[in-house]
Amino acid sequence: MSDGTRPKVLVLGAGFAGLGAARKLRKAPVDVVIVDRHDYHTFQPLLYQVATDVLDPVTVGHPVRDLVHTQDNLDFAQATITGIDLDARTVTFDDWDPQGYDYLVVGLGARANFFGTTGADDHAFPLYTLPQAVRLKQHLLTRFEEAAKRPALVDEGHLDVVVVGGGPTGVETAGALSELFFNVFPEDYPSIDTSRIGITLVEHGDRLLAMFDEGISEYTLETLTERRVTVRLGERVEAIDADGVDLGSGERIAAGTTIWGAGLQPVPLASELGVELVRGRVPVDEFLRLEHHPEVFVVGDMAVATDTRSGEVLPQLGSVALQAGEHVGVTIDRLERKHADPRPFHYLDKGTMATIGRQAAVAVIPPHHLTLTGRAAWAMWGAVHLALLTGGDSRMAALTNWFWSFTTHDRPARVLIHPDDED
Amino acid sequence: MSDGTRPKVLVLGAGFAGLGAARKLRKAPVDVVIVDRHDYHTFQPLLYQVATDVLDPVTVGHPVRDLVHTQDNLDFAQATITGIDLDARTVTFDDWDPQGYDYLVVGLGARANFFGTTGADDHAFPLYTLPQAVRLKQHLLTRFEEAAKRPALVDEGHLDVVVVGGGPTGVETAGALSELFFNVFPEDYPSIDTSRIGITLVEHGDRLLAMFDEGISEYTLETLTERRVTVRLGERVEAIDADGVDLGSGERIAAGTTIWGAGLQPVPLASELGVELVRGRVPVDEFLRLEHHPEVFVVGDMAVATDTRSGEVLPQLGSVALQAGEHVGVTIDRLERKHADPRPFHYLDKGTMATIGRQAAVAVIPPHHLTLTGRAAWAMWGAVHLALLTGGDSRMAALTNWFWSFTTHDRPARVLIHPDDED
Repeated sequence: MSDGTRPKVLVLGAGFAGLGAARKLRKAPVDVVIVDRHDYHTFQPLLYQVATDVLDPVTVGHPVRDLVHTQDNLDFAQATITGIDLDARTVTFDDWDPQGYDYLVVGLGARANFFGTTGADDHAFPLYTLPQAVRLKQHLLTRFEEAAKRPALVDEGHLDVVVVGGGPTGVETAGALSELFFNVFPEDYPSIDTSRIGITLVEHGDRLLAMFDEGISEYTLETLTERRVTVRLGERVEAIDADGVDLGSGERIAAGTTIWGAGLQPVPLASELGVELVRGRVPVDEFLRLEHHPEVFVVGDMAVATDTRSGEVLPQLGSVALQAGEHVGVTIDRLERKHADPRPFHYLDKGTMATIGRQAAVAVIPPHHLTLTGRAAWAMWGAVHLALLTGGDSRMAALTNWFWSFTTHDRPARVLIHPDDED
Repeated sequence: MSDGTRPKVLVLGAGFAGLGAARKLRKAPVDVVIVDRHDYHTFQPLLYQVATDVLDPVTVGHPVRDLVHTQDNLDFAQATITGIDLDARTVTFDDWDPQGYDYLVVGLGARANFFGTTGADDHAFPLYTLPQAVRLKQHLLTRFEEAAKRPALVDEGHLDVVVVGGGPTGVETAGALSELFFNVFPEDYPSIDTSRIGITLVEHGDRLLAMFDEGISEYTLETLTERRVTVRLGERVEAIDADGVDLGSGERIAAGTTIWGAGLQPVPLASELGVELVRGRVPVDEFLRLEHHPEVFVVGDMAVATDTRSGEVLPQLGSVALQAGEHVGVTIDRLERKHADPRPFHYLDKGTMATIGRQAAVAVIPPHHLTLTGRAAWAMWGAVHLALLTGGDSRMAALTNWFWSFTTHDRPARVLIHPDDED
């Protein structure tokens, strides 16, 4: 770890933001330590593919230590943070000695926000972390195994799913579930009539993927409907229990599984940063620094940053987190190696896309706002995500899994091995 | 499932024996239902590779339902067996209705036998099931993460391992641990001096891999010793605790991890079969049938069968289980479709092999008892296991993982995603 003579950069969180910062510090005369409670980096945009059995968890969770090999001034510690003392410049852990720092990069992400929905804590499945994706997968497979033994359960809604939220997480998950239930499982579960399973997507607003143009929202609605997903716009989920949801309209939808893709809130540690949260996120300046603490940077889903050119608040996206993290790395490198002033952060939108299922996706590509739907967008989505997955072996595994999944309708990741299973 | 007009074959256990039986019933005029408490078949010979991070658990656990696609008269149920009533010809489950049968194929495997060793239940890691392999992997990774934060732990034996048993499981595991600790982890954990980690293999007999010739035992001993595994022959482990083992000689070996590869005992259900166990296994006749119950076959590690030509008791090996299962399938097919008498079981030894690590393995190939060691045996071991892994996608995943592992010294499977992790 640190030899004690160079400034120490402590990076909290091994998400896109934290890894982006660490990588850009490769040449800086500093010692970098990444801390995360898990030993893996999660490729969050593909979590829904873990939950729906396209990808194996290991493909989407990449060892953080792999980066340690490739960067001499970098080390990693798996530890759980208990507190941040900004004045003492010290971070405390429940399983490690307190660590001081010269620079602190905080990218601890967020967690699901149920907005007080009754029963959501106990019965909704969020899809923000890899353990959550694995839990959802386990739950779905268990339900199907139960219905294989008692086919009458299908008509009681045992296999029905409600997806809450019509943003990218909800749309991608609903599309992937349609693929899984109606194209893959009929062969796996010949005793189950999967055509009787309902998938319902509930969105409070009046259209899906509201960050895109209306044409894309319409295409998405049509495509999901064709694929037997019932889309309910302008509806709110009021309560969730083990057997279904109650809508704001008073209607009841039976569902053995409710998936939550409708919002994020800060992690508890955000409140230790001594600033008032804005929209539940930590406000930062144009350099992504915390007020009164120029040595502390907050990045990723945890932060609320304003683009210095457009003046818009940046969305909670992996691409924003990665670029913000990289910007912080460059900033510290400029300060320490080049003795140059930091530059304000500007997000370069390289395009936004979402997949709706086999051969159906949407994409918007700057600068001319080129809009793609259908097969072309889907192929592009695949290519971009393959290129982004961290690490060569994950890329190869994703490629082989996709190849199998999309050419044979077969799912290589369709088992669950749980270390606490009875043997 | 069954249409009620054809004989029903109930196969208990989706191991090599159960799957072998089911597959050979493809053309038989029967309905086959495989039952297992897990939804996957485990490729047991590679479990040690899961524990030592070469292979991902999903590669070694293949969905049983994949077989359902390919065989019209086959269905699967994930259920936990609670009892077998041979007179009523009924099997009961804790999560399914009781099932009757016309033929019963019992291949429920075995479990670790600690032979009353003090503390083994609480502190030894057996390596017979996939959850056990995942638990061992998790334990090892956690120990290394702890030592990365507190390097002094290395000298307290925190990372040291004792492997109990000098048969194939013990030898293969010790060799794989040497590879992992001394070739892979030095890059992952630069703060840990892995050369100070001890791996000790304890064998009660006077040589390793006693089923082979002495020359092979010597080669194995030399190879493991070169790879920094301390082999203790003629020693017995008397007691195991969280920090090490006590040997019969009174000596103490500090070890944060003790792996058990020293013997099997029957699963509790073996006692429901109404016969006296022989060497802890269920005795069967030359057709692999249970005494007084010609409609009940017992196969695999659970059974003790005598080869009809050599007169020798067949070992608890995957290849024996597979052939025995296939023989039972053929037998039922002969009875039901060909109306022909069953034939006695004869095991065809296609060779036995074990790998000791990178480019080192041993193999004995009949009929001329050809013995191979070193690189040639290692290459053959790889080719044979690739060919045996069930299912095309596992084969492809194993191939890519091996390619990465053995060409780059990198391990793609080195993270643990646990569904019950805190997110």
